[in-house]
Amino acid sequence: MTDIDATEILPLEPLRAFGTAVYEACGVPASDAALTVEIQLTADLRGVDTHGFQRLPWYAGHLRNGRYNPTPSLAAIRETPVSLVVDGDGGIGQLVAARTMQRTIDKARETGLALGTLRNSNDWGMGAYYPMMAAAEGFVSFCTTTSVPTLAPFGARTRMTGNNPMAFAAPRAAGPPMVLDMALTPVALGKVMRARAEGRAIPEEWGFLDLEGQPTTDPETAMAGIIPALGAVSAYKGSGLSLFMNTLAGALPGGVHSAEVEIGRRGQFLLVISPDLFGDPADFEAAVDDIWRQVKAADPLPGVDEVLAPGEQEQRTHEQRAASGEIAYPASTVRELRALSAELGIPLNA
Amino acid sequence: MTDIDATEILPLEPLRAFGTAVYEACGVPASDAALTVEIQLTADLRGVDTHGFQRLPWYAGHLRNGRYNPTPSLAAIRETPVSLVVDGDGGIGQLVAARTMQRTIDKARETGLALGTLRNSNDWGMGAYYPMMAAAEGFVSFCTTTSVPTLAPFGARTRMTGNNPMAFAAPRAAGPPMVLDMALTPVALGKVMRARAEGRAIPEEWGFLDLEGQPTTDPETAMAGIIPALGAVSAYKGSGLSLFMNTLAGALPGGVHSAEVEIGRRGQFLLVISPDLFGDPADFEAAVDDIWRQVKAADPLPGVDEVLAPGEQEQRTHEQRAASGEIAYPASTVRELRALSAELGIPLNA
Repeated sequence: MTDIDATEILPLEPLRAFGTAVYEACGVPASDAALTVEIQLTADLRGVDTHGFQRLPWYAGHLRNGRYNPTPSLAAIRETPVSLVVDGDGGIGQLVAARTMQRTIDKARETGLALGTLRNSNDWGMGAYYPMMAAAEGFVSFCTTTSVPTLAPFGARTRMTGNNPMAFAAPRAAGPPMVLDMALTPVALGKVMRARAEGRAIPEEWGFLDLEGQPTTDPETAMAGIIPALGAVSAYKGSGLSLFMNTLAGALPGGVHSAEVEIGRRGQFLLVISPDLFGDPADFEAAVDDIWRQVKAADPLPGVDEVLAPGEQEQRTHEQRAASGEIAYPASTVRELRALSAELGIPLNA
Repeated sequence: MTDIDATEILPLEPLRAFGTAVYEACGVPASDAALTVEIQLTADLRGVDTHGFQRLPWYAGHLRNGRYNPTPSLAAIRETPVSLVVDGDGGIGQLVAARTMQRTIDKARETGLALGTLRNSNDWGMGAYYPMMAAAEGFVSFCTTTSVPTLAPFGARTRMTGNNPMAFAAPRAAGPPMVLDMALTPVALGKVMRARAEGRAIPEEWGFLDLEGQPTTDPETAMAGIIPALGAVSAYKGSGLSLFMNTLAGALPGGVHSAEVEIGRRGQFLLVISPDLFGDPADFEAAVDDIWRQVKAADPLPGVDEVLAPGEQEQRTHEQRAASGEIAYPASTVRELRALSAELGIPLNA
């Protein structure tokens, strides 16, 4: 984003220690705290900083006031060789989704195809993490989640379904996986929320409307108004995808869906596919390499320096930030982390 | 569409006989011809008339000049209890996709989860048909296909991947399934092609650009230029989905992908999920009913008479057209059907 104001650079390792200590102080067992922090810092490393430690103060708040369960049981409610549905038991979304994904991957290793789902889960943060777990082991994956209602059905102004992300990953031989993690609006709502936190207007071309259907540049009005779904003149596409992700991740796992989705009541859908069902996995990874190469070889539009493959920008940011050992956060995020640090008496830059 | 000029009404039953006779005259066995016609007329009945008999003259031409195979073998190349990959053998896309979907559904009935894929296939017509086959038997389904390159990667002007549709269906107890069948552009390319056939300009807000990146309203320039993908200010979403559908339906089945997709070289991805993996199927169907009801109960935007659920408009059109026994076609489609009738000596209105 070009319209972000000041950022502040924090060193990575103390952040890891801080996050783990925060979760442990909230009653989360050490190994669960470490995995949760790993997933959240992966978001920050990849530059998806609306989905990383920006949310740590919220999660800590939910754990402390009892809305999140620090020690979820993660019982499988129903299980077959190709499937399982897990009760997230109100645990931290990243934790319960990653644990369920690992069990789904284990099944796919045996059967070639497996679908894990979750009910009674929470916000999973950066969706890319879960299909990337599968891609790291040679699988193709598609994952989605419910989220709290923000989108109206096409033609309506009643909020009914979440801006439910769709996340895909496919392994390739010559480098990190191809990854697509996208919500169903042209602009991430986190960007609007950050503009609100920083007191800035949003561009009119983002497409937000007030409740009377008029364009708005005020982030407060935008977040309370009609949030545009993908599709422009045919926005039934974005809202239709939202309804179907709501069906796959909410109704299918036997959990809560649509307007009833709230804290402790999200669902996830985690599909894992082995390429060896259909041919030699090496041929598949070579084909994904070829797709990547064709993207990189495409003729750029006037004014575009470089055509990027899906996930390439995030991968580069990850490598840069991991090498430097530092993450540049928006000033608003750092302010909230410092407040949490002071409140819990846990040093942020130990 | 409000910008279509004259339409002509044709009776359904003679169309069925005409289509079947055309395919049989092209060497297609009777039962295969009947299934193919059934799928294509279902598109017309649902009002998806860019994907029905509008394409019959093209398919007949491909069969007559040897580019389509009238008697594909449909051998399973690799098969497990949860998967199969079929060689479409250059057959009619609707036929080979439906035959493979039926086999995939049969597997899902045993295992609860099955994925069928196709290589060496062709244009499948209206994507909704295939997940609807699964929904009719109580399954949830997601299907996609490759198609000939029309979309450039985000930021590029080299055409690389198809406007690959995504099609979903979910059964419900109280009525026909919830169905979403969407390509990855804000406007169906069939609408641009029809405007071209009828010599009409297209609206600038459809977002088509010439090869220099300038907006165009000329359908010829638009089809040769840069076709907009879903996403507006973040069109990486539509182009990213195109790359991933290309991966699932092209690379995964071990077939051709990306810029090499052409006649006889498309692929399909057909996923079938039994709700009983995760709970009582009756509860799932009741949940989909509830989603449908929440959509219908949503407060309409000013100027909107009725909020429609996904697939509702098509279902209504289907019921109306089936009841009337008539289909209103664009004049351009009827002209081409009459030309085919004359060429083959098969009466159109027998």
